[in-house]
Amino acid sequence: MLEDKSPQRTALENLGEFGLIKHLTQHFELNHESTILGIGDDAAVLDFKGKKTVVSTDLLIEGVHFDLSYMPLKHLGYKSVMVNLSDIYAMNAQATQITVSIAVSNRFPLEALEEFYAGVALACKTCHVDLIGGDTTSSTKGMLISVTAIGIAEENEIVLRKGAKPNDLLVVTGDLGGAYLGLQILEREKEVFKVNPNSQPDLEPYSYIVERQLKPEARKDMVELFEKLGVKPTSMIDISDGLSSEILHLCNESEVGCNLFEDKIPLDPTVISTAEEFKMDSTTIALSGGEDYELLFTIDQEDYPKIKANPNLTVIGHMTDKKEGAHLITRAETKIALTAQGWNSFEG
Amino acid sequence: MLEDKSPQRTALENLGEFGLIKHLTQHFELNHESTILGIGDDAAVLDFKGKKTVVSTDLLIEGVHFDLSYMPLKHLGYKSVMVNLSDIYAMNAQATQITVSIAVSNRFPLEALEEFYAGVALACKTCHVDLIGGDTTSSTKGMLISVTAIGIAEENEIVLRKGAKPNDLLVVTGDLGGAYLGLQILEREKEVFKVNPNSQPDLEPYSYIVERQLKPEARKDMVELFEKLGVKPTSMIDISDGLSSEILHLCNESEVGCNLFEDKIPLDPTVISTAEEFKMDSTTIALSGGEDYELLFTIDQEDYPKIKANPNLTVIGHMTDKKEGAHLITRAETKIALTAQGWNSFEG
Repeated sequence: MLEDKSPQRTALENLGEFGLIKHLTQHFELNHESTILGIGDDAAVLDFKGKKTVVSTDLLIEGVHFDLSYMPLKHLGYKSVMVNLSDIYAMNAQATQITVSIAVSNRFPLEALEEFYAGVALACKTCHVDLIGGDTTSSTKGMLISVTAIGIAEENEIVLRKGAKPNDLLVVTGDLGGAYLGLQILEREKEVFKVNPNSQPDLEPYSYIVERQLKPEARKDMVELFEKLGVKPTSMIDISDGLSSEILHLCNESEVGCNLFEDKIPLDPTVISTAEEFKMDSTTIALSGGEDYELLFTIDQEDYPKIKANPNLTVIGHMTDKKEGAHLITRAETKIALTAQGWNSFEG
Repeated sequence: MLEDKSPQRTALENLGEFGLIKHLTQHFELNHESTILGIGDDAAVLDFKGKKTVVSTDLLIEGVHFDLSYMPLKHLGYKSVMVNLSDIYAMNAQATQITVSIAVSNRFPLEALEEFYAGVALACKTCHVDLIGGDTTSSTKGMLISVTAIGIAEENEIVLRKGAKPNDLLVVTGDLGGAYLGLQILEREKEVFKVNPNSQPDLEPYSYIVERQLKPEARKDMVELFEKLGVKPTSMIDISDGLSSEILHLCNESEVGCNLFEDKIPLDPTVISTAEEFKMDSTTIALSGGEDYELLFTIDQEDYPKIKANPNLTVIGHMTDKKEGAHLITRAETKIALTAQGWNSFEG
């Protein structure tokens, strides 16, 4: 589980800043026809030929967003990109380019950054995006990552958080809660490791949820599916902070209410069994856990026949008039107001 | 010189992440016709109507790139934006949008971030760019800033580092070395302040160079001037790391050599007198100091009549065949090879 300690350690000061970014990005290919010029000048040059451009950016801080004691650097590179691409797909756009900037302290050897960039490269390849820029500098403490993702779409394809209407169906891709429980497993093993560094953790029973935490996949496939099915969601958001918080964003921006049905929330069997093991409520985890990077969207009821056969999609509720508010309808058929329990990095 | 200690301190955890970014960006207006949608959804939406898009990004770390003991937060916000816009102008492009992400520890009250964003707003207004996105999160130590700048240009307007030919004139805007010496003044006053907190520094004699350090101006005016004069540089770069390092970038990318004339390097009288005070060589400072954010470019000799009357522009040398190398011709007419003494944040 812990990162391999590579025997080779090349100090970063030997390369300098120009040498470093050149070294780390030398094997990246530019494949998008919209990428005219990549890394190496004052700015990259892109050509979107009249299409709309979408831009999103994220900042990831060691000790706040990730823990290198159980997050391998290659996974971290992969996840940093995927988390940003997820925002582009949540606009129903095609991701085309990213910039990746990192700051690291001197304790990181070059080989560690190569691992990180190997993950970035894999994510770029998986989602067919070009790395077009970035900055590499030193930090006084730990590792910091900033990613900006760029995408394109025709104007009439773009889906905002605003646009849901009463009676629209609320749909989610994949299943929820896995990333949060995967994190709990990794945190638990870290504590065990601290007490007994020779312990061999058996993560096999938890492999699905650990992978959900360490290697999330942005739902590029869904944007392609919408096009294939001829469905345009009326509103959409990606699930980074937990289902509850994201539903409230759609409700607020669209000025509608919502009924979410507890028994419809898609949960993997590993999520159910691990939640039981931790004596946690799996619905609470799905509502508030976050980091699943699935898409949450609404569609007109007329489009239901087009999506109903798809195993990736689950209808979990429907939108209502604004005055009805946003509620969870429990298995016991009680109605509970949804509250945002999303993650707040400023809380102590 | 030191920042006002505002009596009001609103803890960041009271706002949460969504509340914070909303609060900080509520007064930003979107003015560019290319900005379709700004902050508030998963991504911003832009429309460049077929023009080429240029993108640049930078990461700024407290303790590495700036020192809050003498850098007021409003200036820091302003400078963070200007530093990035400088890269866009160095492409001979028009800057249109920026994203600004910050991470801060809990020691920063809301009022400090408001000051920072006031500087961001002023830079946006000065350069007519829209703030379209960003991320706000907590850090485990100090303040981190990530800015991505976006601009537009017609394909035939874009100027790269590549493109200089032998006999092209090497031209620089403004004057050099001020930002570096301004930093030396601020560092000296910081040491004085540590010994005697009641000392009242008299920065008046140094106001020009201190302002060059704290409040650099990206040369938007030069891009406009090139258009007005009908001059297209053959290559261009902005001076962030020192003249010497930037000349070598142009030479390497353009595959040419260069003769730089020491007696032509534009220096403000304050730079000359302050360099003497510090017993430093002003040419060395101009060559290696950095952070001037002036533009360095080459033009065809035919264009010389168009620029010669402009007080903002100084011809400091000319390009040569690659095999002749890049040299400084000193006042004593000796020829010294240029070496990159640019700033390397990874050096201990």
